[in-house]
Amino acid sequence: MDRVDDLARAFERFPGIGPRQAKRFVYHLLSTNVNDRNRLADLIARIGDSVAQCQECMRYWSGSGDLCIYCADRSRDDSILMVVEKDQDLAAIERTGAYRGRYFVLGGVLTLSGKGAIREADLIQRVERRSHEGLQEIILALSATSEGEHTADHLRERLSPLREHVKLTVLGRGLATGSELEYADSPTLSSALQNRKET
Amino acid sequence: MDRVDDLARAFERFPGIGPRQAKRFVYHLLSTNVNDRNRLADLIARIGDSVAQCQECMRYWSGSGDLCIYCADRSRDDSILMVVEKDQDLAAIERTGAYRGRYFVLGGVLTLSGKGAIREADLIQRVERRSHEGLQEIILALSATSEGEHTADHLRERLSPLREHVKLTVLGRGLATGSELEYADSPTLSSALQNRKET
Amino acid sequence: MDRVDDLARAFERFPGIGPRQAKRFVYHLLSTNVNDRNRLADLIARIGDSVAQCQECMRYWSGSGDLCIYCADRSRDDSILMVVEKDQDLAAIERTGAYRGRYFVLGGVLTLSGKGAIREADLIQRVERRSHEGLQEIILALSATSEGEHTADHLRERLSPLREHVKLTVLGRGLATGSELEYADSPTLSSALQNRKET
Amino acid sequence: MDRVDDLARAFERFPGIGPRQAKRFVYHLLSTNVNDRNRLADLIARIGDSVAQCQECMRYWSGSGDLCIYCADRSRDDSILMVVEKDQDLAAIERTGAYRGRYFVLGGVLTLSGKGAIREADLIQRVERRSHEGLQEIILALSATSEGEHTADHLRERLSPLREHVKLTVLGRGLATGSELEYADSPTLSSALQNRKET
Repeated sequence: MDRVDDLARAFERFPGIGPRQAKRFVYHLLSTNVNDRNRLADLIARIGDSVAQCQECMRYWSGSGDLCIYCADRSRDDSILMVVEKDQDLAAIERTGAYRGRYFVLGGVLTLSGKGAIREADLIQRVERRSHEGLQEIILALSATSEGEHTADHLRERLSPLREHVKLTVLGRGLATGSELEYADSPTLSSALQNRKET
Repeated sequence: MDRVDDLARAFERFPGIGPRQAKRFVYHLLSTNVNDRNRLADLIARIGDSVAQCQECMRYWSGSGDLCIYCADRSRDDSILMVVEKDQDLAAIERTGAYRGRYFVLGGVLTLSGKGAIREADLIQRVERRSHEGLQEIILALSATSEGEHTADHLRERLSPLREHVKLTVLGRGLATGSELEYADSPTLSSALQNRKET
Repeated sequence: MDRVDDLARAFERFPGIGPRQAKRFVYHLLSTNVNDRNRLADLIARIGDSVAQCQECMRYWSGSGDLCIYCADRSRDDSILMVVEKDQDLAAIERTGAYRGRYFVLGGVLTLSGKGAIREADLIQRVERRSHEGLQEIILALSATSEGEHTADHLRERLSPLREHVKLTVLGRGLATGSELEYADSPTLSSALQNRKET
Repeated sequence: MDRVDDLARAFERFPGIGPRQAKRFVYHLLSTNVNDRNRLADLIARIGDSVAQCQECMRYWSGSGDLCIYCADRSRDDSILMVVEKDQDLAAIERTGAYRGRYFVLGGVLTLSGKGAIREADLIQRVERRSHEGLQEIILALSATSEGEHTADHLRERLSPLREHVKLTVLGRGLATGSELEYADSPTLSSALQNRKET
């Protein structure tokens, strides 16, 4: 069943999808009506037309022009640049309503095996330009995972020439919602203790 | 971001996919090159052309003609018809190499809430015709889950008028690979005991 | 905190208990009242007095005499002997109400690393004696796990000299309650197909 | 099997232990030798003799005198009191090496159903006395779970009369080791952002 296999193999490239679920997607599509299938195909073929990549922060957005709404917004703070791994992380930060600075989306983390096509050259170029435009702080807002930390270490090194004028920061560690003291590691607990606040 | 949301919502209809993973699929597609996206769109749009639904067993297959290779195969046994829930179940049975009879794919089980668009009318029609063509046994090969059993109960009732000439059977229960005696329920253990075999 | 550690280490030897839960047990005991602690200590110290090991099937039971109620029951069938791994497996079989033969509790399975203190010599001795007393079938009722199968293979070999007079059987494989066709392995499905029954 | 059931029921009172595992503990004990059983019984019966409850922080410790090593240590800081749920939480804080103040172990959290035998009266009494002895801050170091927060809310209210002289704090929230930005909730991310630090 070549076509079924071809399509299943294409779905296997989706993040987190194995051979069995890929196959299930194909059978699901076969059982839906032809209009729904055509609509999906159309949405996929045209997603690139309607969604642009912002030439400043590199995130995907739907709109016209080179800059996304956050990068075009003159009221945002040019003195802070937050580096995140992916579009969804940026969305999570925006949901907090607590950040009004600029962004840069890396497009991936460095994996421990050394690979990872991250937009490092773009980041360096942005940072160099922004350092002449009032940039004072870069927040390396990466996940608290080994790959996130590995990437932060790498970027810290790459950005070290700028440290004379620009401060490098990382997100604060502490108890995340749902975590229990007994199972928290010492660095997390130390940070939680240090960052304690009046209630 | 309307187009991103539209496409994410389409992916949410895929089996087992929630809003977050649907979004991740969209960003994955945005980051792949336009050729890969177009190829996927094309495979989806044309999956209906290249894959036909067998007019006998109702499974999807790629080939020409009304009948799939199993239904067209004259060497298979017309006296047994196996009713399965979905295409993947039929594939699992074929992998055993232990079945040479005919198939019918229900296309879903009856959910406990009563819904479930199963091809019941088609099944009855096939069974009535085949009962004049040597059919002697119908195997209700449904999963050992509450929905599978509910569906088997329902089909048993619907097919009862034929029971004078056709035997209705269900798959044998027993210890599945990996299961431990201590945790097996009594019906499973009783069947395993009854179906014990010389070693 | 030596005594806390000593007790925690004793609990770590309990099946499935790691260092953290062992510690939690100690703190739980410290917070209960002294009467409850003394009662638990007493139950543990005296469990050996009140529970006897049946000299025939080797299971633990509470009662007087050398034989447990199943081994002493003259109405049970002497022609079948079921070999199980542990007391809880025997209890699971009894709950089915479908078995009226004799038992032997191995007290463990052979692990793949070759270890495992199973009562092999006792089994051989029982089987040899029983083979002169009408024994016709030995059911190797082990779990459908790799260790259970490894143990069954080993016992089959050890018991082969008796096969002229005694039949060796294993429990039937099939769909266990809750299992889905799509995920069932081929041997399980083949058995389920072979052991299908009229409904 | 009364004694087996009695002992199993006693083990069912252990934290996190259900009927099946309780039974497994009993069979495990039956299969160990009588000396090991007696030693365990002895450790349980005497755990109360060798482990004292500190009359100040209420934790269990092995040593002589009314005060544990932390409460007896004059070099520790009397101006801070940390309230934790249980002994293991105190141990986790000590492992960080980042805290040199005093402790109080609540012995449980308030469950959402309102129950929970916590040492509230003892806490109030300690805090009132210590407020005349230089106490300046109480850290409510409870888990970031709904029950932990419910308990913190309750204690905040109970301790409010003292707030004129004593500061109440809670542990800082942030990214815990292993957590990913995309899945972090807004309060956690806001705190992580606010508590960011130079790297």
